[in-house]
Amino acid sequence: MILRLSSKQSDFQELLVERLQHGSVEDTGLAKGVAQIVADVRDHGDSALLDYLKKFEASSAAKISELSVDPLQAKRALNQLEYPVRRALESAAERIEAFHKKQSQPSWRYQDEYGNDLGQRVLPLDRVGLYVPGGKASYPSSVLMNAIPAKVAGVEEIVMVSPNAESNQMVLAAASLVGIETIFSMGGAQAVAALAYGTETVPSVDKIVGPGNAYVAEAKRIVFGKVGIDMIAGPSEILVLCDGETEVDWIIKDLFSQAEHDEVAQAILISQDAAFLDRVESAIPGVLADQPRKDIIEKSLNDRALFIHVESIEESYAIINQIAPEHLELSVSDPEQVLENIRHAGSVFMGRYTAEALGDYCAGPNHVLPTSGTARFASPLGVYDFQKRMSVIQCSQQGSVALGRIASTLARSESLPAHAQSAEARVEQLGDS
Amino acid sequence: MILRLSSKQSDFQELLVERLQHGSVEDTGLAKGVAQIVADVRDHGDSALLDYLKKFEASSAAKISELSVDPLQAKRALNQLEYPVRRALESAAERIEAFHKKQSQPSWRYQDEYGNDLGQRVLPLDRVGLYVPGGKASYPSSVLMNAIPAKVAGVEEIVMVSPNAESNQMVLAAASLVGIETIFSMGGAQAVAALAYGTETVPSVDKIVGPGNAYVAEAKRIVFGKVGIDMIAGPSEILVLCDGETEVDWIIKDLFSQAEHDEVAQAILISQDAAFLDRVESAIPGVLADQPRKDIIEKSLNDRALFIHVESIEESYAIINQIAPEHLELSVSDPEQVLENIRHAGSVFMGRYTAEALGDYCAGPNHVLPTSGTARFASPLGVYDFQKRMSVIQCSQQGSVALGRIASTLARSESLPAHAQSAEARVEQLGDS
Repeated sequence: MILRLSSKQSDFQELLVERLQHGSVEDTGLAKGVAQIVADVRDHGDSALLDYLKKFEASSAAKISELSVDPLQAKRALNQLEYPVRRALESAAERIEAFHKKQSQPSWRYQDEYGNDLGQRVLPLDRVGLYVPGGKASYPSSVLMNAIPAKVAGVEEIVMVSPNAESNQMVLAAASLVGIETIFSMGGAQAVAALAYGTETVPSVDKIVGPGNAYVAEAKRIVFGKVGIDMIAGPSEILVLCDGETEVDWIIKDLFSQAEHDEVAQAILISQDAAFLDRVESAIPGVLADQPRKDIIEKSLNDRALFIHVESIEESYAIINQIAPEHLELSVSDPEQVLENIRHAGSVFMGRYTAEALGDYCAGPNHVLPTSGTARFASPLGVYDFQKRMSVIQCSQQGSVALGRIASTLARSESLPAHAQSAEARVEQLGDS
Repeated sequence: MILRLSSKQSDFQELLVERLQHGSVEDTGLAKGVAQIVADVRDHGDSALLDYLKKFEASSAAKISELSVDPLQAKRALNQLEYPVRRALESAAERIEAFHKKQSQPSWRYQDEYGNDLGQRVLPLDRVGLYVPGGKASYPSSVLMNAIPAKVAGVEEIVMVSPNAESNQMVLAAASLVGIETIFSMGGAQAVAALAYGTETVPSVDKIVGPGNAYVAEAKRIVFGKVGIDMIAGPSEILVLCDGETEVDWIIKDLFSQAEHDEVAQAILISQDAAFLDRVESAIPGVLADQPRKDIIEKSLNDRALFIHVESIEESYAIINQIAPEHLELSVSDPEQVLENIRHAGSVFMGRYTAEALGDYCAGPNHVLPTSGTARFASPLGVYDFQKRMSVIQCSQQGSVALGRIASTLARSESLPAHAQSAEARVEQLGDS
């Protein structure tokens, strides 16, 4: 049974907010333990890292260098891929690279009326850490989506860590394809700490990206400030807006493609056509019956899915903006018209042919997207996440005098006399030149 | 006595790292108390907010709406400014706006070889919260530097909070000048919580920017994820690289302009000319004697300042990049040559005429900059901090088939069959059309 709401019912807002679980502050109770792990690895390097890997990952390594994976091994994994998979991986990588190249930003400079030069330099980060989770969520597509924007940005070194990386052929193949040369077979909070602070063997990085379990997320929170981090991702979500004219089977499979990720993933369908919502609901059991990941999908649908009946497509705009979905499918006849009214979404899939799954793998845009309503303020992972800006100011003699007078006045009004004097010292000596 | 190091001494790295205090994890012990404040304001809105304001800010308000400052009062504060101050504030605002307009990024779209449309929409955030500290750090220039990029980005509503805002004429004037219409006279962790979650009276925002004390910083950390936040700033720093050919008096005043901010602010001078370092050191007491903020400057110099003697200007590049200073002054004859070698700095002040203080007020670039070595991965506050991107994908029939085949192959290789089916459903029906 999927929860169905009507935008007309009096308790709609209340039930919607409850179902969304936006901004739920989850105290995982991990903070203290993870802080200890981070501090130990920071203070004791390889030896602490090794101890924790033995404890939490049953590592049998005698030293950290044994956990380094030879790039040649990754290259072999790539070469041993079946041809169709390799071809698909290469096509996806090419398309992702083509899209992200459009995000590159140039440095710029201009001169003002006093002959002052002003500008912004855009530079890549030096070294980035990529965390790839182990087990069922260990996806080669995530390697592409995290590493390619970094490469396009000009990052020279990516350090990948992943539990049991050495035995994960698909992940190694993807790493080799995108040119990652430094790989460690390790994971958990201790691996995050090693990337943030560096150890004798693991190089410290400037930013850590990539998904992980609750320990990894907590470790990223703790090291934030020492290094940059990407967003901490919540469960995956899809919102499909459909006018009732799309194949029921397509819509169901699109909803399932998110629901199969995780029992806490969320699939939402909005339509102005109540009969269509009925048809989708009636057809779900038939499509579900054959799903290999049936149990996960069923629990996700029962616990978190939502069908919303609206009076009109236009009425859905405010609801969609409130939800600010990670993935938004506009399965309607005029998606451009709807898009004009959408302010908050991670990635938008326009029209009936654009299955959300195409964006997960190969359309080009990133699949690392803001979840849990954070699309209100956050963006897809992109080249901009792997670059930083530096402001540049060069004053002419005339400019130093003109700006010095303004700065002096404002500094005095803020009671910061040394600021004022620093400006005035130039004004006095250059003012008459 | 200012600590002096030579790059040639054997313990140089050790002593440098110790003096920098980068990435020192400071457990302020505030986490639990602040978490309680945030949770109370989230759960009980105005009534909890009012309780905390009475407790921590001795507020005498009977309800939160009394703490709202009429925009007309801010307008009056602006109109009552002395003419030179008003003129300086307006000139600064114009220059800051001109610089930040160059950061605006357009949305874009392109079509691939299958007729798929791919693009990125760039949109402003809806509503932003600006925290302006009370007391000595309550600066009108900070209002300009935080609000103008938001305005240029297209943010429609800025909600400003500041302790005792109603009696701070300079801050009110600056708020009026940049068109901030929603102002609350309140501060602390409770004000941050109110902005993040909203109360009956205070509107919730999408991102919170602006500096604050340890309680404010901790509250921002806690609400991060519910809303966006800017960087959490450390003490201010300046690094001056001088070839020994600049007026000693200018260099001293530049160093003092940072040191006067705070006893934990840091001023660093690097030169290849040991005699110049001697001359600066000898002249410091004379310049210090007249400083109104003498005690702060003196403690900052004693505790945190650093003179570094290098063998050559070229040798300083690696040291500067390691320090990744917030403010970098290149007081040398060929600053462009040096700049080419600088990878990490917040803002660079080129040549002998560009006093750092000009950048604090009116040069144009932002004065909110990455501190404590975070320029390795972070950027000056900018228009990009008040915009978010949204990916857009619209597949043609042909494109849906071509991409569907790639996505299906990769989804199967990742054991995500519902993803594959969602792509395949279109391939099957559209493949022969």
